[in-house]
Amino acid sequence: MAQYGKILVLNGPNLNMLGTREPEIYGKQTLADIEANCRKTAENLGFDLDFRQSNSEGELVGWIQQSTEAAAIIINPAAYTHTSVAIRDALALCVSPVIELHISNIFRREPFRHESMISGVATGLVCGFGPNGYMLAIHAARDLLENG
Amino acid sequence: MAQYGKILVLNGPNLNMLGTREPEIYGKQTLADIEANCRKTAENLGFDLDFRQSNSEGELVGWIQQSTEAAAIIINPAAYTHTSVAIRDALALCVSPVIELHISNIFRREPFRHESMISGVATGLVCGFGPNGYMLAIHAARDLLENG
Amino acid sequence: MAQYGKILVLNGPNLNMLGTREPEIYGKQTLADIEANCRKTAENLGFDLDFRQSNSEGELVGWIQQSTEAAAIIINPAAYTHTSVAIRDALALCVSPVIELHISNIFRREPFRHESMISGVATGLVCGFGPNGYMLAIHAARDLLENG
Amino acid sequence: MAQYGKILVLNGPNLNMLGTREPEIYGKQTLADIEANCRKTAENLGFDLDFRQSNSEGELVGWIQQSTEAAAIIINPAAYTHTSVAIRDALALCVSPVIELHISNIFRREPFRHESMISGVATGLVCGFGPNGYMLAIHAARDLLENG
Amino acid sequence: MAQYGKILVLNGPNLNMLGTREPEIYGKQTLADIEANCRKTAENLGFDLDFRQSNSEGELVGWIQQSTEAAAIIINPAAYTHTSVAIRDALALCVSPVIELHISNIFRREPFRHESMISGVATGLVCGFGPNGYMLAIHAARDLLENG
Amino acid sequence: MAQYGKILVLNGPNLNMLGTREPEIYGKQTLADIEANCRKTAENLGFDLDFRQSNSEGELVGWIQQSTEAAAIIINPAAYTHTSVAIRDALALCVSPVIELHISNIFRREPFRHESMISGVATGLVCGFGPNGYMLAIHAARDLLENG
Amino acid sequence: MAQYGKILVLNGPNLNMLGTREPEIYGKQTLADIEANCRKTAENLGFDLDFRQSNSEGELVGWIQQSTEAAAIIINPAAYTHTSVAIRDALALCVSPVIELHISNIFRREPFRHESMISGVATGLVCGFGPNGYMLAIHAARDLLENG
Amino acid sequence: MAQYGKILVLNGPNLNMLGTREPEIYGKQTLADIEANCRKTAENLGFDLDFRQSNSEGELVGWIQQSTEAAAIIINPAAYTHTSVAIRDALALCVSPVIELHISNIFRREPFRHESMISGVATGLVCGFGPNGYMLAIHAARDLLENG
Amino acid sequence: MAQYGKILVLNGPNLNMLGTREPEIYGKQTLADIEANCRKTAENLGFDLDFRQSNSEGELVGWIQQSTEAAAIIINPAAYTHTSVAIRDALALCVSPVIELHISNIFRREPFRHESMISGVATGLVCGFGPNGYMLAIHAARDLLENG
Amino acid sequence: MAQYGKILVLNGPNLNMLGTREPEIYGKQTLADIEANCRKTAENLGFDLDFRQSNSEGELVGWIQQSTEAAAIIINPAAYTHTSVAIRDALALCVSPVIELHISNIFRREPFRHESMISGVATGLVCGFGPNGYMLAIHAARDLLENG
Amino acid sequence: MAQYGKILVLNGPNLNMLGTREPEIYGKQTLADIEANCRKTAENLGFDLDFRQSNSEGELVGWIQQSTEAAAIIINPAAYTHTSVAIRDALALCVSPVIELHISNIFRREPFRHESMISGVATGLVCGFGPNGYMLAIHAARDLLENG
Amino acid sequence: MAQYGKILVLNGPNLNMLGTREPEIYGKQTLADIEANCRKTAENLGFDLDFRQSNSEGELVGWIQQSTEAAAIIINPAAYTHTSVAIRDALALCVSPVIELHISNIFRREPFRHESMISGVATGLVCGFGPNGYMLAIHAARDLLENG
Repeated sequence: MAQYGKILVLNGPNLNMLGTREPEIYGKQTLADIEANCRKTAENLGFDLDFRQSNSEGELVGWIQQSTEAAAIIINPAAYTHTSVAIRDALALCVSPVIELHISNIFRREPFRHESMISGVATGLVCGFGPNGYMLAIHAARDLLENG
Repeated sequence: MAQYGKILVLNGPNLNMLGTREPEIYGKQTLADIEANCRKTAENLGFDLDFRQSNSEGELVGWIQQSTEAAAIIINPAAYTHTSVAIRDALALCVSPVIELHISNIFRREPFRHESMISGVATGLVCGFGPNGYMLAIHAARDLLENG
Repeated sequence: MAQYGKILVLNGPNLNMLGTREPEIYGKQTLADIEANCRKTAENLGFDLDFRQSNSEGELVGWIQQSTEAAAIIINPAAYTHTSVAIRDALALCVSPVIELHISNIFRREPFRHESMISGVATGLVCGFGPNGYMLAIHAARDLLENG
Repeated sequence: MAQYGKILVLNGPNLNMLGTREPEIYGKQTLADIEANCRKTAENLGFDLDFRQSNSEGELVGWIQQSTEAAAIIINPAAYTHTSVAIRDALALCVSPVIELHISNIFRREPFRHESMISGVATGLVCGFGPNGYMLAIHAARDLLENG
Repeated sequence: MAQYGKILVLNGPNLNMLGTREPEIYGKQTLADIEANCRKTAENLGFDLDFRQSNSEGELVGWIQQSTEAAAIIINPAAYTHTSVAIRDALALCVSPVIELHISNIFRREPFRHESMISGVATGLVCGFGPNGYMLAIHAARDLLENG
Repeated sequence: MAQYGKILVLNGPNLNMLGTREPEIYGKQTLADIEANCRKTAENLGFDLDFRQSNSEGELVGWIQQSTEAAAIIINPAAYTHTSVAIRDALALCVSPVIELHISNIFRREPFRHESMISGVATGLVCGFGPNGYMLAIHAARDLLENG
Repeated sequence: MAQYGKILVLNGPNLNMLGTREPEIYGKQTLADIEANCRKTAENLGFDLDFRQSNSEGELVGWIQQSTEAAAIIINPAAYTHTSVAIRDALALCVSPVIELHISNIFRREPFRHESMISGVATGLVCGFGPNGYMLAIHAARDLLENG
Repeated sequence: MAQYGKILVLNGPNLNMLGTREPEIYGKQTLADIEANCRKTAENLGFDLDFRQSNSEGELVGWIQQSTEAAAIIINPAAYTHTSVAIRDALALCVSPVIELHISNIFRREPFRHESMISGVATGLVCGFGPNGYMLAIHAARDLLENG
Repeated sequence: MAQYGKILVLNGPNLNMLGTREPEIYGKQTLADIEANCRKTAENLGFDLDFRQSNSEGELVGWIQQSTEAAAIIINPAAYTHTSVAIRDALALCVSPVIELHISNIFRREPFRHESMISGVATGLVCGFGPNGYMLAIHAARDLLENG
Repeated sequence: MAQYGKILVLNGPNLNMLGTREPEIYGKQTLADIEANCRKTAENLGFDLDFRQSNSEGELVGWIQQSTEAAAIIINPAAYTHTSVAIRDALALCVSPVIELHISNIFRREPFRHESMISGVATGLVCGFGPNGYMLAIHAARDLLENG
Repeated sequence: MAQYGKILVLNGPNLNMLGTREPEIYGKQTLADIEANCRKTAENLGFDLDFRQSNSEGELVGWIQQSTEAAAIIINPAAYTHTSVAIRDALALCVSPVIELHISNIFRREPFRHESMISGVATGLVCGFGPNGYMLAIHAARDLLENG
Repeated sequence: MAQYGKILVLNGPNLNMLGTREPEIYGKQTLADIEANCRKTAENLGFDLDFRQSNSEGELVGWIQQSTEAAAIIINPAAYTHTSVAIRDALALCVSPVIELHISNIFRREPFRHESMISGVATGLVCGFGPNGYMLAIHAARDLLENG
């Protein structure tokens, strides 16, 4: 097992579509590309990576509940950012650091995307840096574990 | 001059008090400590650092206006986050990437701190990671310059 | 395969109960009756019909994602009309026309049913015409495909 | 007289300008073109058509009041959709079915166009299908008269 | 000419339909019946009666402007109660007493009928007493002229 | 006993001060003057008058509860107009007509006086006619009992 | 004295009217019937019962202040639920458990009844079970005293 | 089969975590403990118990739809209390009594937990009594079935 | 024809009353005086003047629609400023510059006069300069035509 | 009689509980202690003191009405601060200076305590200084009487 | 000194950037160009010009305070339009006319730019005419001084 | 040095204009007069006085930061009361008592002046007593230092 143990990276609804439709708008990176980059970064920084995606709010809640062995959680809640009290409540039970991540700057989009149910229970927030935000979040996780 | 040129790090009102009052609450790092860490990180990543603090909205606006030679701007607007249209307008004129940074997770604080005038013109946002957020932001800046 | 290809008709939560409980209130037509009528209309107009119902937001999102071969999508989002950003985001990825449909006139019901998350990404909206609205929507889909 | 009697199609302010200014934006169909298409559809479905336009709220109210002999009313209230309690009250007195129609999807336009004073008294709503929406509405009217 | 001169009674949109449709809901009195009763009461109390109805906001504004010789104005603005700044502005120019009248109790109806644009410029308000409210308003007018 | 039985006239807080302080502002009529005028009018119209004032919300509630023998209730709730759900609930239990009365036009005063808790359960409303409004309300009560 | 001491049951305005007016709407049980049932239940569970009703906000506040010897307080604040900060403040001073009770489901009634000033200082809430809710509340009180 | 038939007890997201994490905060009772207590109470009162938990909104909707044979439903919707129109709609189809239950007093928590989508379709509400609330709800269910 | 062609000056409801009632409040200039001054200014600046007033929303809409030959439109919408989507929509179709004009400073009047439906489609706005604002607006029109 | 005459100090609901419950929270001073301190201060400054407390809104209104002989009124309205239009109206009738007083800083408490019905009719406001605020208010009263 | 004395033209934050960055968006005129045009216009109309710009709210306040000798003030408050009560208060002290000016039509921009803190204390408003608006404002100032 | 050390009195924007313009409105006392009175009172009560005024938000923030040696701070934030999060944050860092002061009763002025950003971090508030409020605040400061 890696030095810091497992880092759980959760991806919400529709993120499985990244890069496969309208690449001129959403970029060419697929979620698999992001996962591969995350794996390299995570291993370099001393983490095992557990990278998942679901369109189901309940499945995401379940994965968070079963994350007791994770050293940190990075979550891109996508559309559930704005509506899911259930994911918020599950994250609030976690003792590990939780990092909320958005690929785009949600504050430059429609007003209903400016409110996050998740930010109030996250340790920190990274948004607007494209797929590279995942790598920043993994770095942030390691810093939190080291200097907390 | 460094590879990527100058990175401008701006700090808003009251941040000069960091670490000097109530360290048990606000941490022991002073703004000078943060500046020193930023300098190391910036130089490692190929930036010259220009690090400033002001309590004056007008002075911050002026510094942003004069940042034409900066490769990127990182701004911790502190209290002006929530009230300054002037800083927003100045940042909107910038062509370089702008990264908004908060030491604490503003979404866990009083409701009037949940609204940011700045996010709508920033490229990305980093918040809640303590002083280390400055280092993450410098990394994010370099990634934006490389991969855009 | 039919002239216009497949038309996907999606039905949200609780619509599987149509006609089986309290028919004096909700009418006697079951969802199976509606499906049969849709099938006739669709075939007459040159479509293959793919008709589905789910109580699960995630499953509906998945079906929309897999609809790349559909010529058009008709969706009666039922309760998810008012709460699902995830379905909105999935529909926003579609290149085919999307028609939002409600059996009853939602604007004559409780105020929380007056807001739709879906209308902003739909091509058109049909509501208040009872089960016959499905047939109108299939006609509308063919017109959109012909005249765009 | 036609089988189902008269169908009254009312058009609100500025719709007389359709197709005559900026056709690249508003399409090439004039209101006269739409009327001609409506007439064909109405006659095919067993209606006499009474098609009118006015910029005056009071005149529209008067026409609705005098519609006692109409089998159904289709109304595109245009700008009065959002402001006219008087048209709402006149429609509420009608015993025939009332269908609200919008050429564009009003929910994709400015927020003040998302609220309709009319929907709460209409039988059904058709919007976003362009000029073809008039034909769908005539079909919907006949279905309502046949199946109630 | 009568002792107190002319009393102007204005009726807004759709009031010409009173008693002629759905009498089981709206009562059997027509506007002509009300006018006849008003005439009797007005003459008994020393007024000439000028009783009018219009569906047009502009026409109502014009009648108010031309009311310089009226001793008092009674207005049942109907649907324009809630939307007409123009009628409000015209009434605000009047030097005679202005009485706002509603046949039904508007505060027991839909919320959008609870706000009146007119009350802020009226001398007094009578509502909820059915057609008899007109007679009460004429009495109130005479009292205002006598004791004012 | 009078023809129509008893009419109960209730007056809320501070109305006992009418005419005794700052008569140049609030007029010279005291509540006793109003009561005397009411008594004359009531007797002429076939009512016994029961006229009361209290500064206590609970006492007013009690009087309403004990009004079973009253043919009608006229209430000037004064300050309790805007805050008392208890008076509203007591009035809602009454089977006799309830008339809400205000001496001044409350819609021309501060915004917090524009909302009435009482109007939604009253039969009718008279406001803005000064002390004479009491006489109008007694007339209105008799009309409601005769034609109601 | 009973095992658990005294339980104070407070009833707000208009509850003294229960069962005596419009029994077809409000049920046939009077407040005296409820008191009798409460007394049986309370004695069975080891409480002395102190059961009171008042229309006066101040009197209810006084009774709460004097409840130092009570083991628990059950309060049906009726209309004061929505308006009384004074009752809220008095209850906030209590060290015994406080149970808020409503006979009807207030969330199915008018919107202004959906907000309770009391819930934020109550231990628990029982609503919508009719008069039987009092018995449930007494059971709940005993459980709270036993298991805390 | 038991005297009153089956009682269905539904538990929403994250309730499966009760007692297993941070017992000093959330108490030591697990959901299995609560189920055991419910079973005893239900059997004593003449019910068969069907006790379930799910993190999935759709699965909860499905269970409610399949509850036709249940004599009563008790639901602790947890996070879905505040967001699920789908569960509301499913419950609205039920003819058996529905009891909404919360372990904590949701009105003492964050403001976004003060609004319930469920209360408007529930028969009654029990909240704030800890795990014992389940027992109170089962008692309430039996009373409703007997006296309802 | 004048150098710049026709300039259309439209005046909304009640402006025909300027100067004829309460001159001590509204000034002594009548609309005819303003028209005469406008004519002089317009001719000096190379415009033919077309100056109109109407109390009717529909008539104003019609005049705007027929303004195709106008070089510029100046509109004082008066009361329709705050309520007319129809005038807004008509103006939005114009290709000539549109100048919104108010004689008084509407932002110093009642709050409901602070919102303009027109500003969002106007080229520019002049308000608060009394009748002289018309002359400023004609100057502004010429500048827009010359410099764009 | 003292030089400045009588000063009336009114205390609203629950203030009679000061110091007798939870002294670690609310301080050890009882209302009697405060009254004694007020008496000393008042006499030193040339006032007779009339010091009262009531839980009843109506009784407080009555005392204010009877205060014609008082040189000044100091009122700690407690919970009625936020809800009583009746006390506001009574104070508005006073010609003597009125000082609003709160022991705690109400702006640091729950949001519903941030709004005062009283401030708009008070001469001045003192809040947040604990029991000593009463002495400041008596000083302020004398200054107002001397320098007014 | 010029005939009308000095006219003070104040420019708020970021206006010093006009024309120097992104001229394709903001136009080619610099603030110096505007100043030169203003000087010509001012001198032609009999004014001395005092033209200033500052990014500092406090400095702008100071300049307004020192404007006692100015015949009129024209202010383009830029970003401070929407946030500065301090500038509002300073302008409210001025006895000379105050003209608020915006280069663009602020009502066509983001919603937070639709509210002005300044309009309520300005004499008049000119907006949306580009740099030429400064000249219109100088003309308006002279008219105000001549005709009041 | 005085017994209690230094008391810092800060004055926000425009207060330097007191008494020098429109004395019939704002009184004849200049800020210098107030300072002189403060100095006398402060010295009598055992304080050294440090009395300052600035129009600059940043300068006020700086003075607060440098107030470590002050025994207490009295601040009249003037216009910054309603907009400055920066001053709020600076005051929140202070360990000495902070007293917010307003010369006028801000709750009797425009609605936007009813909200204070400062009250939530102040120890106490004095407003509405004119210039004498400064003296009351100095007394209050001494009481807080003596009795805490």
